[in-house]
Amino acid sequence: MAKPSKSRSASADIPVASWHLRLFRIPGIPEICPGDDLLKLVTIAMRRAAIRFHDGDVLVVAQKIVSKAEGALVRLASVKPSPQALAAAALLKKDPRMIEVVLRESRRIVRRGRVLITETRHGFVCANAGVDHSNVSGDDMVTVLPRNPDRSAKKFAVALRKRTGKRVAVIISDTFGRPWRLGLTNVAIGAAGLPVLLDLRGTLDRHGKPLTATILAVADELAAAAGLLMGKSDGSPVILIRGYRYKPCFQPAARIIRPAGEDLFR
Amino acid sequence: MAKPSKSRSASADIPVASWHLRLFRIPGIPEICPGDDLLKLVTIAMRRAAIRFHDGDVLVVAQKIVSKAEGALVRLASVKPSPQALAAAALLKKDPRMIEVVLRESRRIVRRGRVLITETRHGFVCANAGVDHSNVSGDDMVTVLPRNPDRSAKKFAVALRKRTGKRVAVIISDTFGRPWRLGLTNVAIGAAGLPVLLDLRGTLDRHGKPLTATILAVADELAAAAGLLMGKSDGSPVILIRGYRYKPCFQPAARIIRPAGEDLFR
Repeated sequence: MAKPSKSRSASADIPVASWHLRLFRIPGIPEICPGDDLLKLVTIAMRRAAIRFHDGDVLVVAQKIVSKAEGALVRLASVKPSPQALAAAALLKKDPRMIEVVLRESRRIVRRGRVLITETRHGFVCANAGVDHSNVSGDDMVTVLPRNPDRSAKKFAVALRKRTGKRVAVIISDTFGRPWRLGLTNVAIGAAGLPVLLDLRGTLDRHGKPLTATILAVADELAAAAGLLMGKSDGSPVILIRGYRYKPCFQPAARIIRPAGEDLFR
Repeated sequence: MAKPSKSRSASADIPVASWHLRLFRIPGIPEICPGDDLLKLVTIAMRRAAIRFHDGDVLVVAQKIVSKAEGALVRLASVKPSPQALAAAALLKKDPRMIEVVLRESRRIVRRGRVLITETRHGFVCANAGVDHSNVSGDDMVTVLPRNPDRSAKKFAVALRKRTGKRVAVIISDTFGRPWRLGLTNVAIGAAGLPVLLDLRGTLDRHGKPLTATILAVADELAAAAGLLMGKSDGSPVILIRGYRYKPCFQPAARIIRPAGEDLFR
């Protein structure tokens, strides 16, 4: 994996390294249409930006373009709202066809506020089941989440390896809200090639005490870091992260979902 | 603020830039004791690592060392558990003195699971009110969150400007768990010098449609990005982020706290 850019032990008792992480916004990804070869478009954009893949890179790809490429789009004119959707839409003052799509994408409703917080078929808990009409051409179209974002990520990583010879981890990200804190943050909804959770339990802190309750959601932190460069409106749905050290493995982002039985907030 | 490292318009209709973000782990921060001049120790470590502050940098500092420097430490031997703490500790199979400290730091208990999820005096909802015994010397000591992390961040940023002449934003971070998703992520509990929330409502997506419901919690994304380099056990509590573009301002991290009345999960 990526080597530390510089090694230095400034304090005798602590092995430390000046470790350097870089994130590149990949410009020039065109509007994506169903059936597009996303990897091809990304590699073209990378070439134009004069950035090459390195072994150990992490590529973060916004859900929106994965959904579009996979045709995970719904034309609202084709949607007939159920009585449940009509009732919910009246309360929320929303388009009943939109609510119908949200309900179809959901296992169950977790909360009804100004938006519907639902549990998606994948198990994600988020607003409107990830159904979104921003950055979609046409007033009438919405995107839904990829059917299986982990499979999409794996397919992308495997094809990328085949095409470029480089071992690059792939994260598919979306912006989710959260309780207690305002604002959206980018999180991993699909992953391939890296550990999504980093379990530090059993390791020792700098005073030799074992760390407890310390599992870091590193795939979400990688997605969040990429979110800083993605913006929302100016078409930067692909971010390359270089210098993050990890052991390559296939661990799905579905692993991040907290089992319902252990969750105090469902 | 930081300029794009390269400008390029690979697609005629989208103004894009190859924007480059860098994160530096600052090695060699020593063990911090109450009363230590944290800024001085950080600037010494920066100098040793041959990294200089630039205008527009963002410095992310782990809560743990801020708490230690401010003396936000409690010796458990000095704590007499209340009957409420004794009862809760018996249920949770935890040290009643630790639970007593958690309760003292809390406005109220939000949930009782394997840990106490409480609302801290600041309004943060997190496990154990942020009380922590890892990376503290002595079995008997725990850290509590800084009394006013926004004030701590501002003091640090102002002193840094005075000492170095550079305008650097400061984030004080801690790792919090979250509902629905496993693992901790690093979030901002104190901030100074940058917008903590980026409100994109009213801006247009690439199809000219207004973005709705799009406020990004960028201070949390910056903290999460820094979390990737902080680790837990090997003493890297200070991360420098370079290349993040923002308009300098003083906006407290307290702004990120969702007002209780708008929160569906308290």
